[in-house]
Amino acid sequence: MDLMDVFGERIKIINRKIDEFLRVKEPERLYDATRYLPLSGGKRLRPLLVSLSTEVLGEDWKKSIPFGIAIELMHNFTLVHDDIMDRSPLRRNIETTHIKFGEETAIIAGDLLFAKSYEALHELDVDRGDFRRLNLLLTKCIEEICEGQYMDMDFEKRDDVTEDEYMKMIEKKTAALFSCSAEGGAVIGGGSDEEIKALSMYGKSLGLGFQIWDDYLDLKGKENEFGKRIGNDIREGKKTLMIIHALARADERERDFILSILGKKDAKEEEIKDVIEILDNLGSLSYAKEKAMEYASKAKGFLGILPKNDARRYLEELVDYAISRRR
Amino acid sequence: MDLMDVFGERIKIINRKIDEFLRVKEPERLYDATRYLPLSGGKRLRPLLVSLSTEVLGEDWKKSIPFGIAIELMHNFTLVHDDIMDRSPLRRNIETTHIKFGEETAIIAGDLLFAKSYEALHELDVDRGDFRRLNLLLTKCIEEICEGQYMDMDFEKRDDVTEDEYMKMIEKKTAALFSCSAEGGAVIGGGSDEEIKALSMYGKSLGLGFQIWDDYLDLKGKENEFGKRIGNDIREGKKTLMIIHALARADERERDFILSILGKKDAKEEEIKDVIEILDNLGSLSYAKEKAMEYASKAKGFLGILPKNDARRYLEELVDYAISRRR
Repeated sequence: MDLMDVFGERIKIINRKIDEFLRVKEPERLYDATRYLPLSGGKRLRPLLVSLSTEVLGEDWKKSIPFGIAIELMHNFTLVHDDIMDRSPLRRNIETTHIKFGEETAIIAGDLLFAKSYEALHELDVDRGDFRRLNLLLTKCIEEICEGQYMDMDFEKRDDVTEDEYMKMIEKKTAALFSCSAEGGAVIGGGSDEEIKALSMYGKSLGLGFQIWDDYLDLKGKENEFGKRIGNDIREGKKTLMIIHALARADERERDFILSILGKKDAKEEEIKDVIEILDNLGSLSYAKEKAMEYASKAKGFLGILPKNDARRYLEELVDYAISRRR
Repeated sequence: MDLMDVFGERIKIINRKIDEFLRVKEPERLYDATRYLPLSGGKRLRPLLVSLSTEVLGEDWKKSIPFGIAIELMHNFTLVHDDIMDRSPLRRNIETTHIKFGEETAIIAGDLLFAKSYEALHELDVDRGDFRRLNLLLTKCIEEICEGQYMDMDFEKRDDVTEDEYMKMIEKKTAALFSCSAEGGAVIGGGSDEEIKALSMYGKSLGLGFQIWDDYLDLKGKENEFGKRIGNDIREGKKTLMIIHALARADERERDFILSILGKKDAKEEEIKDVIEILDNLGSLSYAKEKAMEYASKAKGFLGILPKNDARRYLEELVDYAISRRR
């Protein structure tokens, strides 16, 4: 059973809301640019996570929609700006916003998505204390994402990044938003402090596993299924867990070769393949895969204190979906 | 009497709070970049406006500090991103953030200021209804600023921008934040609907006059006082009120000459001087000056229904300060 089939209807509702929420007005081309990425697809994992975190606590998932939309728009804002910084030409198999609309417009489109995310919060039907709490939760999360994105870029310039540093970086850049999604959903669901904490931790582990798996897919995924060129992260010089693991274990010749290809924008398919082979031989790919699985199992562990119901089962399946998906 | 001397102490308090609020943490260089512009000076006109709008209604101005800081950080976020888009090398007589720290870091620093602005709101000691109201006010304002910035950039590519379009653009790009400042201050001050509306309109007129005056100063200000190179707007191809006025009245030769210099990044001092002379002869400079004065007078008119007190007098003086300042 594919989780995305089970929740197809739910995702359709979310997509329709995003479409309405970002309806075009003047200046039209700015709104076209702002809608471009959020309406180009995307798995909507985060709004789904929000909705299940509300539902598992016995509340109607629909109450969580504005928060899910806020999270999804914030996620898309980070993608638009990250793609500018990373000079990425493609995302989800289509041109990135700055390639299609120009860099200046893409910067503003990202800023507008940021503001629209906060606007979405105002559609929440929660008491005013919860509104303030959710607002702060989202705000602190974005600050972490900014810090994480900075670290990620900074790591590209360094050859001595440690595994601890990498984990801290993805905790901020990726896991914070998953954690925020689950925690926010739990607040909307009226959870106890313990339940809110458990869902927050679940989201964090899920996010860590998701990011490691995402990095893994960049090397092992199939070109057309993954929607990005294989080895993109290598061409961008990203210090993924696999690269860090390999650099610490490679002999001098291997290390020099990896470093010579890392960050080489125009690296040939063959060169990428050779790096992947070295990583594979050093056990770095299987190391990353195991780590991702560890976090998957950790995430599921946090669900133990929650009510046993369908939503909880789906939260478990969401982990498997996020951390064994092929794209 | 210089308003900035009267409120020197108030501005010091605001500066100290901004300094504390943006204290450096990891990753240090990101926080350095984030602090760089907001702590490089600036007139703090907007937080001062917030504080006076609270005070005029009989409330302690200090209650408004977090909102003033939120507004000032939001203002600085827009400057950091605008300078990237406009490729401006200097602001306040120092290098812009993207020149000093690189474009990628400047994009994130702007994003972080955006988030920090929302974080500042959480220090407000207001009831939860007012919190939500102020939050929405700020959010809608940023959306307008994004629209205004897009229009401003779009106008650079067009030769047929009308005065109405220009007014709509500066209403969004500049006046919205002044209006938001005054309205927010009034909400914190516990104003009646009528008082809040009056202060909002006051802020809007003040902002319109301020922007027209700012454009005027770009041509008539003195180099070292204004802190920017004279004629910057001409080199950037900005369609200011003066340019629009002149293009509608110039003969073909003048029009061709203006358009040949407009947007010419490396225009010589002499060429800028010649454009300014044409604008002066066509009455475009005095037209803009009069328009600015009109809005100044309109702004003061909105203060009529407010309690007569010191703060109200300072709000009047703030108009004169903002719309006859030499830099």
